[in-house]
Amino acid sequence: MTDTRPQNNSLLIVLSAPSGTGKTTICNRLREVRPDIKFSVSHTTRPPRQNEREGVDYHFINGERFEAMQKKGEFLESAWVHNHFYGTAHSTLKAHRDRGEDVILELDPQGAASIRKLKLDAVFIFILPPSLRELERRLRQRGTESEEKIIERLTAGKIEMGQYRLYDYIVANHSVEETVETLLCIFRAEKHRSSRFTTDCPVIGDILKSD
Amino acid sequence: MTDTRPQNNSLLIVLSAPSGTGKTTICNRLREVRPDIKFSVSHTTRPPRQNEREGVDYHFINGERFEAMQKKGEFLESAWVHNHFYGTAHSTLKAHRDRGEDVILELDPQGAASIRKLKLDAVFIFILPPSLRELERRLRQRGTESEEKIIERLTAGKIEMGQYRLYDYIVANHSVEETVETLLCIFRAEKHRSSRFTTDCPVIGDILKSD
Repeated sequence: MTDTRPQNNSLLIVLSAPSGTGKTTICNRLREVRPDIKFSVSHTTRPPRQNEREGVDYHFINGERFEAMQKKGEFLESAWVHNHFYGTAHSTLKAHRDRGEDVILELDPQGAASIRKLKLDAVFIFILPPSLRELERRLRQRGTESEEKIIERLTAGKIEMGQYRLYDYIVANHSVEETVETLLCIFRAEKHRSSRFTTDCPVIGDILKSD
Repeated sequence: MTDTRPQNNSLLIVLSAPSGTGKTTICNRLREVRPDIKFSVSHTTRPPRQNEREGVDYHFINGERFEAMQKKGEFLESAWVHNHFYGTAHSTLKAHRDRGEDVILELDPQGAASIRKLKLDAVFIFILPPSLRELERRLRQRGTESEEKIIERLTAGKIEMGQYRLYDYIVANHSVEETVETLLCIFRAEKHRSSRFTTDCPVIGDILKSD
């Protein structure tokens, strides 16, 4: 059977999660099961962490270059988080959209709020830890950060989580598999939103033409 | 792990599909795979078809009784379709809601529009045939109806389908399995809508309390 479903309803997904929520694991699993869904690669002035690759995890640039791009209006959104700049370049997003790909923007609530203001047809998803106690446990478990940093991240996390009303969907990460399944369901459901069906949709077009 | 997810976000789903779309098959499959999701049993003055059971498919009542209930305001919505009355009793819906069950109301666009006006927190889903040609083929395949009835249903179907903007989601029924999977995804996604998360939600409550 020819697939006559509309191809022009690609999704722009804004995904946020406070540190320690498990976002990295979730995103890695998403990449595995759905390589067709692309992660937008942001620009940042933060130095690469171990295992992070240029052009894959981030475009790592210096502060001077970042500010030059910002001045030229090359960013869809940009933010100052944990002492570094982060930004999504218009050109990055455009390349994905031109190929009809679904794109995920990983942003903090500050970035998500900027995208909201642009009134793009985006889907906003907030991943939360199951509880504050669990968040604290996960942050400590990493063992890579000082007590001061942990408390800083917990405080930032609580402030971030208070922004949950910014988002269309909230997913508490009880288990990675369950969370990934829920995310895939949200993506699938959103593809069927009537607001994304235009007269280009074969069935609807068919019906309208027949009048 | 204790499931700390909110239990108070049960869904009210309004499901519409023109005749010949395959709604009966889809609903039967849904009943099989998700017996926890309940179908609201409407009242109707239409005589039972073969295999239809009182209290399961419909509450079959006569016109006099229907009008008496209508006068007393016992219906959430009621409509005159294909020469018969159909209505959803407040009491039916309340019983499901009181038990915290997800409920599906199978309604035509006229009924769906009535529910929209009530501003209930309902999810509106429209199932469409893959094409008008396919719809016609399916209606003829049944072999139970006269040519006149088929043309009447096709015309009614086209008018109904023109109402697609009434709905939150549109699902073209390419295959029953795929459609049922999409419906289950929509239900799952809707459970995670931030508008359904109140401060009763453990994670959010937790965060708000911690301030």
